[in-house]
Amino acid sequence: MKAEIIAVGTELLLGQIVDTNSAYIAQQLTTVGLDLHFKCTVGDNLERIKSTLRTALSRSDFVITTGGIGPTLDDLTREAVAEVLNRPLVFQLRLFEQVSDFFRRLGRTVSDNNRKQACIPEGAIPIENPVGTAPGFIAEQNGKAIITVPGVPHEMRYFMEHSVLPYLREKLGIREVIVSRVLKLFGIGESMVDERIKDLIEGGTNPTIGLLAHTQIGEIHIRLTVKTPDVASAASLINPVEGEIRKRLGNFIFGADEDTFEGVLSALLRQSGLTLAAVETSFGSSIIQTLKGMEGSKDFFRLGLTLVNPDMARPLLRAAESLPGGGELLGEEAAGWLAEGARRLAGSDLGLGLTGRVGKEKGQDHLVHIALAHSRGTEVLEQRWPFAMRFIENRMTKMALSQVRKFLLEARG
Amino acid sequence: MKAEIIAVGTELLLGQIVDTNSAYIAQQLTTVGLDLHFKCTVGDNLERIKSTLRTALSRSDFVITTGGIGPTLDDLTREAVAEVLNRPLVFQLRLFEQVSDFFRRLGRTVSDNNRKQACIPEGAIPIENPVGTAPGFIAEQNGKAIITVPGVPHEMRYFMEHSVLPYLREKLGIREVIVSRVLKLFGIGESMVDERIKDLIEGGTNPTIGLLAHTQIGEIHIRLTVKTPDVASAASLINPVEGEIRKRLGNFIFGADEDTFEGVLSALLRQSGLTLAAVETSFGSSIIQTLKGMEGSKDFFRLGLTLVNPDMARPLLRAAESLPGGGELLGEEAAGWLAEGARRLAGSDLGLGLTGRVGKEKGQDHLVHIALAHSRGTEVLEQRWPFAMRFIENRMTKMALSQVRKFLLEARG
Repeated sequence: MKAEIIAVGTELLLGQIVDTNSAYIAQQLTTVGLDLHFKCTVGDNLERIKSTLRTALSRSDFVITTGGIGPTLDDLTREAVAEVLNRPLVFQLRLFEQVSDFFRRLGRTVSDNNRKQACIPEGAIPIENPVGTAPGFIAEQNGKAIITVPGVPHEMRYFMEHSVLPYLREKLGIREVIVSRVLKLFGIGESMVDERIKDLIEGGTNPTIGLLAHTQIGEIHIRLTVKTPDVASAASLINPVEGEIRKRLGNFIFGADEDTFEGVLSALLRQSGLTLAAVETSFGSSIIQTLKGMEGSKDFFRLGLTLVNPDMARPLLRAAESLPGGGELLGEEAAGWLAEGARRLAGSDLGLGLTGRVGKEKGQDHLVHIALAHSRGTEVLEQRWPFAMRFIENRMTKMALSQVRKFLLEARG
Repeated sequence: MKAEIIAVGTELLLGQIVDTNSAYIAQQLTTVGLDLHFKCTVGDNLERIKSTLRTALSRSDFVITTGGIGPTLDDLTREAVAEVLNRPLVFQLRLFEQVSDFFRRLGRTVSDNNRKQACIPEGAIPIENPVGTAPGFIAEQNGKAIITVPGVPHEMRYFMEHSVLPYLREKLGIREVIVSRVLKLFGIGESMVDERIKDLIEGGTNPTIGLLAHTQIGEIHIRLTVKTPDVASAASLINPVEGEIRKRLGNFIFGADEDTFEGVLSALLRQSGLTLAAVETSFGSSIIQTLKGMEGSKDFFRLGLTLVNPDMARPLLRAAESLPGGGELLGEEAAGWLAEGARRLAGSDLGLGLTGRVGKEKGQDHLVHIALAHSRGTEVLEQRWPFAMRFIENRMTKMALSQVRKFLLEARG
């Protein structure tokens, strides 16, 4: 069966806002096995919305519209659907009461404009909206359906999850459920992951195995997907394959599914009972910003110091020796000196120091030193990356925190 | 005249990447006065690309495709355009030499696949690609045209700017140029701006005046747009209106056009010769991260201190008195104490301190205190925002830096 998405809104068409809804809806539709062949964006114009709907209905089984169901004059999706299906719009008291209720809870009164939002094409299935003011609907005709959801992203998501996907699952007679587990990796490249589990990817049928590189956050995600008659039996299909992958990729895997790198590290730090301090320089890493935002950071994060000027460093860090390595906040020795200074000043168990230079010309690499000082010494990691690499700062932030994670895992044994 | 955009690519359709190209192209098309009525996304499927092209050609004068002109088997835009226009694809030696040349510069050799990229529909105008490997083309037919550009964003932008817009300007006989000036404001709401310049907005014809609120960065942009026979005369039309707006909105306007808030503040700080230090707490503001990233930060940014634990504060800041106001890193007094501590510890002219509590329940506001310590005393600004406000951390970061800007403007007189 085929599905098609229509995003309605002149502001989308003119590029004043970027359409992220369609991407989300597209992803959701694949989970119920619908084929998506077209996505269209149309402005707030009745005739053009109608013509887009007609084209879509002629070639797809399910047409999902997003946007254009607000209370104002230029919200025309409702009218367009009704006219294309040749049905009147019918006022639904229950929907109106719900809209009124929503306004009441916000301490506002419903206006006459909002009456229009409670109108849906005759015979359509209403979809209530507990998270906003625009109700949606599903209008079936000749074995096809137009499904109308709001354009406000969090409302649209609520509709998809609570009404649209259950409706589609029912319609499509989907008894099988699709269950996925995502393993998340940092500190290893996509081709290396591919090399280590190529045979599993190629031989994988249930679960199938997919790799996705998230360049911006430097993570590789391995997705294991199974089709099973019920959720309960999914684990028995996924677990053995997951075990094999974990055996091959070990500590590069920092978490699964909803885990975040920061969440996992924060839990590890809290379990360890160790405290941490960090010094950053003018390199754009954001270790301190990340640490302070972590859950429970008060329990483990003692101090963050940001220095862009070398002359401040020695008095502040109460160092016996002056800044090594040329007196600049750069290089391996300086990073170690900063990490030890952070640890000393904060009286913490661990100290992180990072120095870095961003490559600006071809042939010049980004050069970063990440130092971790602990009770048994100081380790410095050197990182060279090609000058053209984007997201270098994010990557180095994570690499520094990844060193902390590695230390904690080893300390735990 | 009407234009239409077709984005080609299964990864776009399935939402694996979000289509930002269409938004950019849409914005550019408005600058040459074209009406954009539809935007469609289609997967890498020959028949469906052809059908989308046919529908587009039937209702629009210019059809712009982006994507699907790479070297691989699933790049099918070229073939689809040729078939829809009923013309053969013709190999263009000059384009192929250019592709080969690009590979040579990268130190790689061109492959046979790339030959395909040098093929364009017979009679089409080739567009060379000095920034990548995929050449584009403009194929005219019956007074209409299909314009094919790459999907890689920076290549697409290069094509639009250097070939497509000049072509459209020529075709549309545009002698007039459209010139805009954007005034950027922070620290004032959209409705307040609207109220103060409503008469100018309503009466504005050349320039027309538009308001746009950028919620995420907390800025309001006022766009003045004129149509003029030449760029030189634009200033004489814009300047008087801009002058009137500046009179009414004064220092809320921090810059114009390409100015950024950070860039303007950095220039002000460097001009003033004053130095600055900042203390942040566990509130998610990123004042220190922002300051260290500013151009020339070494000249003015002395020190950033991040404290999430109150017990570290007194010894570090070498304060005579302990943390006031209940001993927590919260509230007006604590913010002032931190700002003074930052100034004392760093020996800087200015000290910034920020404390904050994020509202998590309905009825509980976000409550933030921003303190600026200088040679004549310490000023503390209290900010209350509704609990549901997103981007509160960005907003408060900017509000703190805005206090610095205000101080510098006043000090300058």
